[in-house]
Amino acid sequence: MSDPKQKLMELLSPVVSGLERMRGVLASELHEPSPVVQDMIDHVGRFQGKQLRGGMVLLMGEATGNSTDEHPTIAAIVEMIHMATLVHDDILDGAEVRRRVACLNQRWNNQVAVLLGDYLYSRAFALSTHLSSRLTSRLLAETTRTICVGEIEQSALRYDFDLTQESYERIAGAKTGSLYAAACELGARYPGGNEVLGGQMRKFGYEIGLAFQIVDDCLDLAGDAKVVGKSVGTDVEDGKVTLPVLHVYSSSNEAGRAAIRDVFTLPDLEERTLKLRDVCDLDTGIERSMDYAQELVERARARLLSLPASPAVDALHVLGDFVLKRKW
Amino acid sequence: MSDPKQKLMELLSPVVSGLERMRGVLASELHEPSPVVQDMIDHVGRFQGKQLRGGMVLLMGEATGNSTDEHPTIAAIVEMIHMATLVHDDILDGAEVRRRVACLNQRWNNQVAVLLGDYLYSRAFALSTHLSSRLTSRLLAETTRTICVGEIEQSALRYDFDLTQESYERIAGAKTGSLYAAACELGARYPGGNEVLGGQMRKFGYEIGLAFQIVDDCLDLAGDAKVVGKSVGTDVEDGKVTLPVLHVYSSSNEAGRAAIRDVFTLPDLEERTLKLRDVCDLDTGIERSMDYAQELVERARARLLSLPASPAVDALHVLGDFVLKRKW
Repeated sequence: MSDPKQKLMELLSPVVSGLERMRGVLASELHEPSPVVQDMIDHVGRFQGKQLRGGMVLLMGEATGNSTDEHPTIAAIVEMIHMATLVHDDILDGAEVRRRVACLNQRWNNQVAVLLGDYLYSRAFALSTHLSSRLTSRLLAETTRTICVGEIEQSALRYDFDLTQESYERIAGAKTGSLYAAACELGARYPGGNEVLGGQMRKFGYEIGLAFQIVDDCLDLAGDAKVVGKSVGTDVEDGKVTLPVLHVYSSSNEAGRAAIRDVFTLPDLEERTLKLRDVCDLDTGIERSMDYAQELVERARARLLSLPASPAVDALHVLGDFVLKRKW
Repeated sequence: MSDPKQKLMELLSPVVSGLERMRGVLASELHEPSPVVQDMIDHVGRFQGKQLRGGMVLLMGEATGNSTDEHPTIAAIVEMIHMATLVHDDILDGAEVRRRVACLNQRWNNQVAVLLGDYLYSRAFALSTHLSSRLTSRLLAETTRTICVGEIEQSALRYDFDLTQESYERIAGAKTGSLYAAACELGARYPGGNEVLGGQMRKFGYEIGLAFQIVDDCLDLAGDAKVVGKSVGTDVEDGKVTLPVLHVYSSSNEAGRAAIRDVFTLPDLEERTLKLRDVCDLDTGIERSMDYAQELVERARARLLSLPASPAVDALHVLGDFVLKRKW
């Protein structure tokens, strides 16, 4: 298989013109007369990323025969919200490198990173209020709330090894699944109506997003920072008990559990992730988590069966593999 | 004159039932099943504050004969956005006490304060998407953007003594005037139409808000933390060159200017505000600034002349005095 970025480009080829338009909207929206603000926006623009969420709005529009002229704008709004969460996330977990570009809060400061995230949110909402239907504003304001609740709960449950898989899923679903879910629902049913199909595609997005988060959590434990393109090991440093750790913890005896807990409180943060591998069978935990991510992707794919065959449906199918096999 | 809180209550008496409804909306909206999130919301709820911005939506509705059943909800949305800016502001300037309640980021941490601010913004936007007209969503999303740009510019221009009064006004207007302006415009013309009257009342709000910010900047230099109810002296500590300092700086000779600049870079932050008084005639700067705030209030009041006499118009008139004479 060719390199993953090439793969992603192929995957998004059914919506290549929509993506171009989405990027055009982003470029024209993220424009500010204030030079200092523009400078920061440009910096954030370089985060770019996979634009997978925006891509899913467009693919879902094509796959359901629901594409409208406004879909590229909706895709841009979804990407702007995602960028805002990334900017605020960099304050949260002290990640040192995000996609090989120095984080905003390292180059400027926390103050400005908070404000720029707020700026991106407000731009996204403002843009959504000019669409012909209010569905995007409604759905994405609710989604942003859900993301915040998920992130707050995750923060509150740091170092909590009594976390159940159910709670992990609820939180990962809220902080990551919900935006994928909204992207797919909007793609499938904007400007309105079609609740049944929308609900089905929403579930597709949710499961793909949850799988994406699980893979992310595995990469944070086992990935190579150079390939992943952002700091790894930050979850353990921050005391976040993710699914692979939960698995290995729940299958350990009391001594094993105590050893894991001890590693999570080592004063040298960087040592935590390194030592974790020594005190438990992390690979088995990762394997079980990846199996579950695979199961979620299969479940999601089954939801596509009701759609008529098309290149976009094929792409959504392949997207599951991409999510599972990505190393970045 | 009775105590200022009493005075404010009297002032808002023409809209007392609307305010009750506004508080009811706030109470029912700021409710979350997650106990940890609810705990934080409750904490923020205690910030309360003057609810002047929400009050202005209601007073303006009454004064222009434009009150609708939705005005209390709009007032609540404006207050939620204001609360979000306060929560994020506490990250920004490291203020230690806000309205005698420990700041969120002192009781929890910066992470959570960022997320809770985001939560408040998203709740506000979500609520606005359920109003019958989209005007509130549009205006407040644009206003939030303006606030962010103002705050970012302020942050970028710290320690900049070449700041012109024009730039100071542009920034203070963006970060404070804009939300007052939006509150008044919405009060006067929601659900739509009436651009001329709306524009006029928008200017009223802008001028009152700018005056409010100027008074705030004076209180930060001269106020008593116990009365003001939040930390004072933080502007000088943070390197913010506010109008009173600009005035005294521009009327100083080169030696005087150098002394002021030196004070702004003293390593002991708390010493900065104390020493500032020693090296320059701060009171004259404050006096000139207060004169200008008075002028702005007069200008704003003149805009009310087109409205028919009513208790609400009287209250908007008196509000100018309140803004000027408030010590908190």
